[in-house]
Amino acid sequence: MQPDDSDLDQLARTLDAAHVFHSWSAQGVKSALTIAGGKGVRVWDHAGRDYLDFSSQLVNTNIGHQHPVVVEAIREQASLLTTIAPSTVNLARGEAAKRIAGRAPEGFEKVFFTNGGADANENAIRLARLYTGRDKILSTYRSYHGNTGAAIVSTGDWRRVPNEFARGHVHFFGPYLYRSEFWAETPEQESERALRHLRRVIESEGPASIAAILLETIPGTAGILLPPPGYLEGVRELATEHGILLILDEVMAGFGRTGEWFAFDAYDVRPDLITFAKGVNSGYIPVGGVVIDDPIAHAFDERVFPGGLTYSGHPLAMASIVATQDAMESEGIVANAKRVGAEAIAPGLAGLAAKHDVIGEVRGTGVFHAMELVADRASRAPLPAADMARIKGALVERGLLPFVQDNRIHVVPPCVVTDADVAEALAIYDDVLATAL
Amino acid sequence: MQPDDSDLDQLARTLDAAHVFHSWSAQGVKSALTIAGGKGVRVWDHAGRDYLDFSSQLVNTNIGHQHPVVVEAIREQASLLTTIAPSTVNLARGEAAKRIAGRAPEGFEKVFFTNGGADANENAIRLARLYTGRDKILSTYRSYHGNTGAAIVSTGDWRRVPNEFARGHVHFFGPYLYRSEFWAETPEQESERALRHLRRVIESEGPASIAAILLETIPGTAGILLPPPGYLEGVRELATEHGILLILDEVMAGFGRTGEWFAFDAYDVRPDLITFAKGVNSGYIPVGGVVIDDPIAHAFDERVFPGGLTYSGHPLAMASIVATQDAMESEGIVANAKRVGAEAIAPGLAGLAAKHDVIGEVRGTGVFHAMELVADRASRAPLPAADMARIKGALVERGLLPFVQDNRIHVVPPCVVTDADVAEALAIYDDVLATAL
Repeated sequence: MQPDDSDLDQLARTLDAAHVFHSWSAQGVKSALTIAGGKGVRVWDHAGRDYLDFSSQLVNTNIGHQHPVVVEAIREQASLLTTIAPSTVNLARGEAAKRIAGRAPEGFEKVFFTNGGADANENAIRLARLYTGRDKILSTYRSYHGNTGAAIVSTGDWRRVPNEFARGHVHFFGPYLYRSEFWAETPEQESERALRHLRRVIESEGPASIAAILLETIPGTAGILLPPPGYLEGVRELATEHGILLILDEVMAGFGRTGEWFAFDAYDVRPDLITFAKGVNSGYIPVGGVVIDDPIAHAFDERVFPGGLTYSGHPLAMASIVATQDAMESEGIVANAKRVGAEAIAPGLAGLAAKHDVIGEVRGTGVFHAMELVADRASRAPLPAADMARIKGALVERGLLPFVQDNRIHVVPPCVVTDADVAEALAIYDDVLATAL
Repeated sequence: MQPDDSDLDQLARTLDAAHVFHSWSAQGVKSALTIAGGKGVRVWDHAGRDYLDFSSQLVNTNIGHQHPVVVEAIREQASLLTTIAPSTVNLARGEAAKRIAGRAPEGFEKVFFTNGGADANENAIRLARLYTGRDKILSTYRSYHGNTGAAIVSTGDWRRVPNEFARGHVHFFGPYLYRSEFWAETPEQESERALRHLRRVIESEGPASIAAILLETIPGTAGILLPPPGYLEGVRELATEHGILLILDEVMAGFGRTGEWFAFDAYDVRPDLITFAKGVNSGYIPVGGVVIDDPIAHAFDERVFPGGLTYSGHPLAMASIVATQDAMESEGIVANAKRVGAEAIAPGLAGLAAKHDVIGEVRGTGVFHAMELVADRASRAPLPAADMARIKGALVERGLLPFVQDNRIHVVPPCVVTDADVAEALAIYDDVLATAL
């Protein structure tokens, strides 16, 4: 779809090696892929080679690459007004906030905009601490909440460990039946025991010291860990019982990924604060935010909210949100994610699991699925990193951009994915799992 | 320049009041201004009323509003590729990094991109801690470094106090002769005593526990506090003597604001890490970053850098940086800021100070000046908040958007400001200072 231009590829690689310091990596390891453009579920390099994007990059391009309506909205707003201070009133900002509040439960009227998911969580934590007058934030070990000061220490995974410079963070174990921390054997048992564990942590930390429980509704990078029956509802009850706020992090799971507008719509739970980024505008412009339950928002009617940022409610980001939300609605994109997930991805992955012993478990919903790869089904020992690297390389070689994390392949295409795209991806997974090991 | 459309204004205000939660404010206080568009040093509302922007919003629109070359570059890149994962190679990202590295001193080759100034400082702090193996970050009480976990606790002003949930931060007093913390009477004495104070803080904290000294090259929101002769050079010497890194925060001062590409170019000082945002692309797309001295960058050639974010090196942000940097260069915009500052703003403000006793001091460089207003020149007592609010209201009423902070008016127009714009602003300041009190 692009002219073959190896000079551009070479220039991009040379400049990257010389001048770009990359996220979460050793800088000596060079990226294999130069990306020049994209459309829908595909991206391509300067040589014109296409890739089927089953990663949605960092699980953010829910509406697909370069959706024409969103691109046009960005182009139009760029011509009108790109940036304005957050203290002003701006129409694009109000329209974006209205749409997001409209997706939240009744009684969530106000939205605070940030630059991404990390500072969305930072500000939700700030709101919770100021509203409750308490310090501690509880979150799970299997979680990721962003890379800034408080967000990275809320995070439970390895990325927290070199960054523990914030206080007031406590971690607990969430439910994950396949690798249960609670010696559970059924989903109901896992749920009940995980809740008892959380209750004991709350009691032991002192309920009156805890401002909020911060949870990804469905932990994403940690493994797409769907909460077992009754778990989120039980967490809500524990929080309410102790005057603790419940923050649901919908940065990765929100805006269509699970086949719902918010992932928690599939559960009988009402959070106090909702954080978002990624899917809200597919990351076309950096943006994130917090949707705030009315009593918390109104606690700052007279009291100054001590948080903010230069690009809060950035008009160009706002215009991209408005266009994305409207296009997702009018084109039935969330419903598509739900249908394709149920009718193509879930049965397709079950078929692969029936065929390949290396697949220990498949799980997921919508366009948010994981295959957990194991060296041995009985022991559930994770497939070694070297094997995972070989699989990842083979998938890219076959033209599929995968999302590989630890011993898992996350199947996370854009929400606009078709049955045919899924069939193409399943054939590649099938072939690679049969030949790459 | 826009049609009178009070319906749009009303809609914007209604949506804002209903759904937008604002930065750093009590939500019951409604913004006076709806901004519909802008061009150069002017913005306008839906009623078509123009304002002369002597705030550059939050001191970020260095290139002015809606620079056509930058707008067109955003429109073009939007059509090509808005977003791609940071792990890939992308040409726009390499081109942006090359230009930024090219403005830094020799030996700063790598740039890490973030979403804004706060996470730029977060990541500079992370790099400093990992590189030195030490914990503490020293910064001044009169400073602002951003709103996230570590950045807000590095901040010295009141915004830190409700947010002190990070450890490892120590504050000291910087030089500020007009309100000296050191009983100094000359700039040389202020510099020497401020350095002795810093040396004593370093010795008392234990030099081997200190990772970095984080300074705004010229503290901005804190008052545009130009470092006295020898101060930055002395800080550099102290840092080097003790194996401490020097992080210069150029988020507000960088990219033309002071009449230099980096504010530190006017001083004989070489930092170890440089943080930027705002002026790098005038905030047209949210972006920031860290420019990294080679030995620090290369320390992560084999070791994984444990920091990152979804929108690091976002192609649309990168394209806006490339266009901004090239336009600022080709149009001589930094030189314009320097000339207008020296020939129009500085003498103009000196003239106002000669006329109005309420002006206690004027100071600054380039398009980065402050008037400090006092109730009494002898005691230097700050002008009360109610008077400042009246002045601010009168300036807006007269069609000038001011940047008012504490008892100061910061004179911070875009770098493209003309002598005629300055004359217009000076006349408004003059009139308001004569009549509003």
